Amino acid sequence: MRMSQLLMPTLRETPAEAEIVSHQLLLRAGYIRRSSAGIYHYLPLAHRVLQKIMAIVREEMNKAGGQEILMPIVQPAELWQESGRWQVYGDELFRLKDRHDRDFCLSPTHEEIVTDLVRSTVRSYRDLPLSVYQIANKYRDERRPRFGLMRGREFIMKDQYSFDRDEAGLDQAYQTMYEAYKRVFTRCGLTFRPVEADAGAIGGAGGTHEFMVLAESGEASLVYCDACDYAANVEKAECQAPALAENVTEFPLEKKSTPGQKTIEQVAAFLAVAPATTIKTLVYRADDQLVMVLVRGDRELNEIKLGNLLGCLELRMATDVECQEAQLGPVGFLGPIGVQAVSIYADQEVMALTDAVVGANETDMHWVHVLPGRDFSVTAVADLRMIEVGEPCPACGAPLQAARGIEVGQVFKLGTKYSKALGCTYLDEKGQENPMVMGCYGIGVSRTMAATVEQNYDEHGIIWPLAIAPFGVVVVPVSNKDEGQMAAAQEIYEQLKLSGWDVLLDDRAERPGVKFKDADLIGIPLRVTVGNKLASDGVVELKVRKTGEQFLLQREEVLSKINALRQQLAPTE
Amino acid sequence: MRMSQLLMPTLRETPAEAEIVSHQLLLRAGYIRRSSAGIYHYLPLAHRVLQKIMAIVREEMNKAGGQEILMPIVQPAELWQESGRWQVYGDELFRLKDRHDRDFCLSPTHEEIVTDLVRSTVRSYRDLPLSVYQIANKYRDERRPRFGLMRGREFIMKDQYSFDRDEAGLDQAYQTMYEAYKRVFTRCGLTFRPVEADAGAIGGAGGTHEFMVLAESGEASLVYCDACDYAANVEKAECQAPALAENVTEFPLEKKSTPGQKTIEQVAAFLAVAPATTIKTLVYRADDQLVMVLVRGDRELNEIKLGNLLGCLELRMATDVECQEAQLGPVGFLGPIGVQAVSIYADQEVMALTDAVVGANETDMHWVHVLPGRDFSVTAVADLRMIEVGEPCPACGAPLQAARGIEVGQVFKLGTKYSKALGCTYLDEKGQENPMVMGCYGIGVSRTMAATVEQNYDEHGIIWPLAIAPFGVVVVPVSNKDEGQMAAAQEIYEQLKLSGWDVLLDDRAERPGVKFKDADLIGIPLRVTVGNKLASDGVVELKVRKTGEQFLLQREEVLSKINALRQQLAPTE
Repeated sequence: MRMSQLLMPTLRETPAEAEIVSHQLLLRAGYIRRSSAGIYHYLPLAHRVLQKIMAIVREEMNKAGGQEILMPIVQPAELWQESGRWQVYGDELFRLKDRHDRDFCLSPTHEEIVTDLVRSTVRSYRDLPLSVYQIANKYRDERRPRFGLMRGREFIMKDQYSFDRDEAGLDQAYQTMYEAYKRVFTRCGLTFRPVEADAGAIGGAGGTHEFMVLAESGEASLVYCDACDYAANVEKAECQAPALAENVTEFPLEKKSTPGQKTIEQVAAFLAVAPATTIKTLVYRADDQLVMVLVRGDRELNEIKLGNLLGCLELRMATDVECQEAQLGPVGFLGPIGVQAVSIYADQEVMALTDAVVGANETDMHWVHVLPGRDFSVTAVADLRMIEVGEPCPACGAPLQAARGIEVGQVFKLGTKYSKALGCTYLDEKGQENPMVMGCYGIGVSRTMAATVEQNYDEHGIIWPLAIAPFGVVVVPVSNKDEGQMAAAQEIYEQLKLSGWDVLLDDRAERPGVKFKDADLIGIPLRVTVGNKLASDGVVELKVRKTGEQFLLQREEVLSKINALRQQLAPTE
Repeated sequence: MRMSQLLMPTLRETPAEAEIVSHQLLLRAGYIRRSSAGIYHYLPLAHRVLQKIMAIVREEMNKAGGQEILMPIVQPAELWQESGRWQVYGDELFRLKDRHDRDFCLSPTHEEIVTDLVRSTVRSYRDLPLSVYQIANKYRDERRPRFGLMRGREFIMKDQYSFDRDEAGLDQAYQTMYEAYKRVFTRCGLTFRPVEADAGAIGGAGGTHEFMVLAESGEASLVYCDACDYAANVEKAECQAPALAENVTEFPLEKKSTPGQKTIEQVAAFLAVAPATTIKTLVYRADDQLVMVLVRGDRELNEIKLGNLLGCLELRMATDVECQEAQLGPVGFLGPIGVQAVSIYADQEVMALTDAVVGANETDMHWVHVLPGRDFSVTAVADLRMIEVGEPCPACGAPLQAARGIEVGQVFKLGTKYSKALGCTYLDEKGQENPMVMGCYGIGVSRTMAATVEQNYDEHGIIWPLAIAPFGVVVVPVSNKDEGQMAAAQEIYEQLKLSGWDVLLDDRAERPGVKFKDADLIGIPLRVTVGNKLASDGVVELKVRKTGEQFLLQREEVLSKINALRQQLAPTE
């Protein structure tokens, strides 16, 4: 492609509304344009990146036995009513009516409609397993669309659904997809980790991994192990059970005055004990019940774990008024001793303490020398806290590392949630009717483009991995008035095209500085510069965007050098 | 692909709701499934056809200088208000509100949004010409969705928009697209004609061609010339001006009683004259005015031509009451003689009559020996009638043929309609601001799939042209219990795959009759049957779906024969 003909409206300034790097750079480099909040145009450069990501996705999904289809974006409300999600989905669902006043929505996801499709087309165990996928627009009416393509209202996803006879089939489908996803993101040239994640409210059979592109700007907090493959969302990461002390020296329970000392830090300092020997008492409202939750003073409660333990739909901290109404002690001095009115849940570490401090349910008073079990008992003990960096890996015991990640894919065991709700069954060998066992698997295609930028940029612009770069090479004649340079550039351009490269020829009447800056900004992996040295020494310059390496090459060497670099720049699996 | 793993839910019965062949066959052969009225799933076979059509479209559009982008489907109302179409579009526009109560629509077409994109990204004459396209879903809330993919509410289109400095640029862009469209449909293997069509109300600069796939079920009526390239929608086709008679023998005007004779046939028979010498008088309501229209008794009025002449927005036949109120004669006996109250428009043939019959504006009375010009005068004379088969071609004079067609593409000169409405301007060499001159170009991708079926089928099912068949070859082992047959079938399958063919292996445990029927139904161009003759004579059978030709081949000959047929089955340009 000739750059003079390319719609590439670069911007000199970073647009003020763009908060994160990918949003800034994709706007500045002319990849995207905003149409309305959270809704974007993909311009030619972006379209090329998307097409390359999609091609990799297609290849790997087909290889993994997926069959590509296209399902409607405009979906009838009836199906969502059948699954119960028409009500549950809330404001994020774009809803509309047709001219006959029938209700529809713009699909945020396709579980209902694919289940409807399969129940009406598949009847026999002989037709299973089945895995279908599509690459299509998805819609989510975000309250506050932001971060460019990261949290848009209209976005492109690959979504896939597997249908199996039983759990064992689902396990196999899940594993196949897990491996295929690893190949997709590896081939895209990304540094990523599949992490154990929480199945949340969607989960049927449970079991889910998120594929996280590692980047400092990531919204997700992860821990991972360098010694083994373990990685998990902090929300999900299991904490090891603490060793229980043997030969405990018991001290008698004692109430102490702690005037005005409310926070763990204050109390620990005032009583001259380590925060790790104090107990933090929290009160939550789980659906319509209050519960008391205990974690060690130096730890943080993991609300996801608590919610899963309680199996509640809604969970939030109780207000001071709610605590008062339940006749719990004053906030800042709450504690479990003597409490009967509410259930008490303790993190497993709390029960390993032998000489602890906890609020006494009286203003300005704490208990010391508390021995859990002796001084209070609890409804249940569980892993309820956030894991921390340096803690032992649950798989191998090595110290965990922390990272931030951007979720670009998720694999998910749905089980029979939708097949039961919508009556998607098959007849087995004995003629018995069974619900199909389902999995679902998503890749955020437009999000992957943005996540790639978050992970691959410098102060000059984007640095695309070769596999998904809009063009692999840009050929820049320093002066487009120099006929020799232009002819050589043109020749190199044609030669590279012929050998299968996506090449851009910067044939614009611009100063060389502008051309170099634009090449860096739009992030083309390789740049061939045809300048004065061509006439003097017969050489051109080759520069690698990512490493900054430069090579002076005889004109005839360019193709072979670039083909050699292709190997070098390809991702290693 | 192995057929045992393919989601291909064929139906034994023709679904009752399907009225036309493509709808019936695409349902029966497991290509599509209805989700809601006018909204379909595209199953794997259909997806493969769509992908092949899209690949051809992409190649040709890129070759013609188009740049692929993706624009939003959910579009803000503001842009449609700016162009004025928010009000005009009516019930066909799917409208919705977001959570903040802002108005949006689902795009039926992208003139507004592409003009918005270009006005915000292109400023200079140096960036023109520009041509961008996308392949994406479109939405139209049809009152009565029907005919399967032919008139759906959600469908796939390639839409393209060109931006030029001036009319000459547009002319060139238009011609480039016209040629590219011819290549697209030729490569798809379709019999089609580009026809001159009416620009209607959208038209700015005017000038449009529709690309019609010829098929008896087509909604459009065409005329075309075998002697030259001329073809037109009947609505548009120009009628040649009649020769005016010389040396006219004038007869005096005479009123005759024609009791109860109202229709042309009745009057002509009663008066023993040819219908071609009578004048049909019609009254229309054009916006809020009544007009009288005259065509020869044996001809049909072309309302499109009349509407264009009058430049009105709404046009319909006047009611009897409206005629009475305007004090026009009784319906059945209407005529132009003596009429002053309304304007009179005559088809050019009417003015060539020299001894005509026309209603006398009195019950049961007609004038005879009417000489137009002498006995009545008109506001304007124009080509106002439908053309008929056998009339001379306006280009070369040879007799015109008639055909029916399905519109699969349209190229259109928009001119400055949208660029002026939305302020999409560029600065020319002198720094002057000018509106860009636009064209738009659509291909109905999903419609092309259906139109192909309308043109290519027999009583056994679909007959895909090779270029867009979901698979080029199906290999059918007659008995999947015969190990020799299965091994040979498998080998042929792998061999064909390796040499680049899309192949289907019918590895299902079905009777041969079922396999053959399915292969015919889904329309695979070539079938290789591996049966008993393999063991006895070492031969397999190759059958061409379209022609029914059969070849007995040595197993080793299969690949070379099939490769040879590829040439034969390829479209000739």
